[in-house]
Amino acid sequence: MISKFRFASWSLALGLLALISSTHHAMAAEAKVETFTMDNGMQVVVIPDHRAPVVTHMVWYRVGAADEPAGESGVAHFLEHLLFKGTKTVAPGEFSKTVRRNGGQENAFTSSDYTAYFQRIARDRLELMMKLESDRMTNLQLSKKDIKTERDVVTEERRSRVDNSPSGRLSEQVRAALYLNHPYGDPVIGWMHEIKQLNLKAVTAFYKRFYTPSNAILIVAGDITVEQLRPLAEKYYGVIPSTGPMKPRVRPLEPEPQAARRVTLTDPRVPTPSLRRIYTSASYSRAEPGEAEALDILSHILGTGTTSRLYQRLVVEQKIASYAGSWYSGDALDLGDIGLYAGPQAGSGKAELAAVEASIDAVIKEIILDGVTDQEVADAKNSLLSSTVYLKDDQMRRARIYGVALTTGQTVRDIEEWPSRIEAVSAKQVQDVARRYLKPRRSVTGLLLPEKTEQRAKAPSTVKHGDKS
Amino acid sequence: MISKFRFASWSLALGLLALISSTHHAMAAEAKVETFTMDNGMQVVVIPDHRAPVVTHMVWYRVGAADEPAGESGVAHFLEHLLFKGTKTVAPGEFSKTVRRNGGQENAFTSSDYTAYFQRIARDRLELMMKLESDRMTNLQLSKKDIKTERDVVTEERRSRVDNSPSGRLSEQVRAALYLNHPYGDPVIGWMHEIKQLNLKAVTAFYKRFYTPSNAILIVAGDITVEQLRPLAEKYYGVIPSTGPMKPRVRPLEPEPQAARRVTLTDPRVPTPSLRRIYTSASYSRAEPGEAEALDILSHILGTGTTSRLYQRLVVEQKIASYAGSWYSGDALDLGDIGLYAGPQAGSGKAELAAVEASIDAVIKEIILDGVTDQEVADAKNSLLSSTVYLKDDQMRRARIYGVALTTGQTVRDIEEWPSRIEAVSAKQVQDVARRYLKPRRSVTGLLLPEKTEQRAKAPSTVKHGDKS
Repeated sequence: MISKFRFASWSLALGLLALISSTHHAMAAEAKVETFTMDNGMQVVVIPDHRAPVVTHMVWYRVGAADEPAGESGVAHFLEHLLFKGTKTVAPGEFSKTVRRNGGQENAFTSSDYTAYFQRIARDRLELMMKLESDRMTNLQLSKKDIKTERDVVTEERRSRVDNSPSGRLSEQVRAALYLNHPYGDPVIGWMHEIKQLNLKAVTAFYKRFYTPSNAILIVAGDITVEQLRPLAEKYYGVIPSTGPMKPRVRPLEPEPQAARRVTLTDPRVPTPSLRRIYTSASYSRAEPGEAEALDILSHILGTGTTSRLYQRLVVEQKIASYAGSWYSGDALDLGDIGLYAGPQAGSGKAELAAVEASIDAVIKEIILDGVTDQEVADAKNSLLSSTVYLKDDQMRRARIYGVALTTGQTVRDIEEWPSRIEAVSAKQVQDVARRYLKPRRSVTGLLLPEKTEQRAKAPSTVKHGDKS
Repeated sequence: MISKFRFASWSLALGLLALISSTHHAMAAEAKVETFTMDNGMQVVVIPDHRAPVVTHMVWYRVGAADEPAGESGVAHFLEHLLFKGTKTVAPGEFSKTVRRNGGQENAFTSSDYTAYFQRIARDRLELMMKLESDRMTNLQLSKKDIKTERDVVTEERRSRVDNSPSGRLSEQVRAALYLNHPYGDPVIGWMHEIKQLNLKAVTAFYKRFYTPSNAILIVAGDITVEQLRPLAEKYYGVIPSTGPMKPRVRPLEPEPQAARRVTLTDPRVPTPSLRRIYTSASYSRAEPGEAEALDILSHILGTGTTSRLYQRLVVEQKIASYAGSWYSGDALDLGDIGLYAGPQAGSGKAELAAVEASIDAVIKEIILDGVTDQEVADAKNSLLSSTVYLKDDQMRRARIYGVALTTGQTVRDIEEWPSRIEAVSAKQVQDVARRYLKPRRSVTGLLLPEKTEQRAKAPSTVKHGDKS
């Protein structure tokens, strides 16, 4: 499973947890998150939640598509699929069958920065899950037939998610144009021609290099205490021999952006044109203090919900767009991005799309020149912190927040301090990050257009031609 | 020295040699090019030319910027600089001094696909050059101080060629946007932040891996025969121990292009806007039979000289451009590119640039729809073959043609047969390659604009703002 654009909103994800750990004092004593590291380098995080006798068991690896060797795009995600094949003692497919037989749910996902596996299951089945998950960390057994079969599954997944989806195609092209040097420009699922060449050798080398205890994090949320978990963690994961500490994750960095870019994709399945734009920005892990938090608030004011500036201007006042919004994605190891999207009313063409873009540019210009109001900032803070209340019961999502943070350069403490950092953001800081990051040269604007029938420029003939394959 | 865009025109380069080897029968007997391979895998090419007692001595390595490890862009070019430091027996700088003392000229260049070193010198100094050149193939001695000193030279070279040149900046950005996966998108000189991190370890690893006899080609042109060269080649280069055959040069390939791209660069040093566009196409080495030759003729008809379609339409008839032209660059291992450029009259703005682009699009559309005339094809062939006559005396350039061809997947025979393949191209083939390759989605259009003082969109204030660093 591809973790699309990492989290759509880091703030939404973080907010949940922040709220739980800071405002629900009644739960505080039992909700205290604890973490320790075993001798082989594997980190353990315990998130107690005793409301029901269930647990969420997750193993996260600090490896994703941005860590792949050149020419082997997709190998991280492909390996994630292959982990559901067999090991020396567990037959292929048996892991998933066992989870289902025991009433559990399971899944796995891959992003540019991490790969994770999890099960949600009754508390008394936790040890069984730990036995199976630790087994496939080191004992995976793959045949050439497994590779061939699963490669067909993945190429089909790519076809349906990217190649047969106009929006998926545009996303891929925009990201590829956004990152000129950093591997965040490569699709997590891989380029089709490279997926097709992934073989047992490449997969095995990747597995042996990255699926090690010091590169892994065990997260257990639910009806358990650290005292109960520790002996189990040691029994199943702690016994895996250390392969030494991992080298720092150094990826090729992005040079300072120089030129505004546009990507125009035409596709016959597109009924109405649309636009999205992404600016490279800072991530929570690498930003200057306060910047990522200010970007979260900026994105909220710019385009989250129907009271946001983009929605109010384009949809409510000018009535030129049927939707408009923005996001900030800061949960990445190296670089964050802030983006926006909008589409004119159904039946519109290029002229209406140009009007939508002009209004977007005007909204951005106003924020850069005039800043945002204190009231907007206060509302955004309230919204960021309170809109996540409904998530407080979501044990799996809560565990996931820790996994994302810990595999993208943050700490448990960073997560816990997030609400106070959000509270500290000023209107001036929001204007400052808008000035710094919403620059044309940091951006790629992607246009999705219906495929057109071009007419001849000079001659009277009406012969069709053009961009055929 | 960076070999900019490889050859500006492959046809111009090849044409020279083709003419010499096919039409000057008087010279044919003595001009016959011979090649052999020594036991350690090093290829030797002899290009006799007895008009004067001089030789051009070249060593080519089948390695360039597209072979660099991720995150180490610029290491191939940096190493080229460092080869002018010392060896175990030759003091730093002594090589170049020796060449000058003996009345010779020398240089070196790096492209995406190759790195080459050459001297042009009196015939009786050839053996000295071979001694020195073979010495630095294996005995290079570098200190950390050498790295530091020469890195400053290269960063300064980058500053003057790219960062302080609007046109250089645009070229870099356009190529980076053209190749989404293939390393041809990386600048040969390297990204500045990566050049600054190149160290002795990275350089040494690159040198040891790629500077081996089986990865090298010796080319000697001038007053020498194969009988005279062979013992010298064996004495100096043949004795270098083999390190085994090189692995095939497999680079990440480019996915099929999906979306037209535009790159807009503003720079305060630009007086008048201009435009360039590049389409990925086929290289001589990987094209279907006849395609690369047809691309050479297409580029000639489209934009070479004042009788070309672009020049006639934009400069002569419509008088909207002060210059317009095109190129085809097919001398690359993996992918060729066909490109065009134009600029409106001095003092023009964005509107005039848009008119220029519209006319370019119209010219391309006419070729795709209506093809080219037999007369245009015949004229292009004549021009390609005869415009190179003036180069026939250029011994160094002739040797260089062989080096480029042999390091980008071609053979001596390919070079010799080039004129007959050009002769065989039909008007239909030219239209076919135009249809196949001049598609918007294969292209990046780069716009170079003067930096503008933006006005506020809504308010009456005239505060300057915008794209500041």
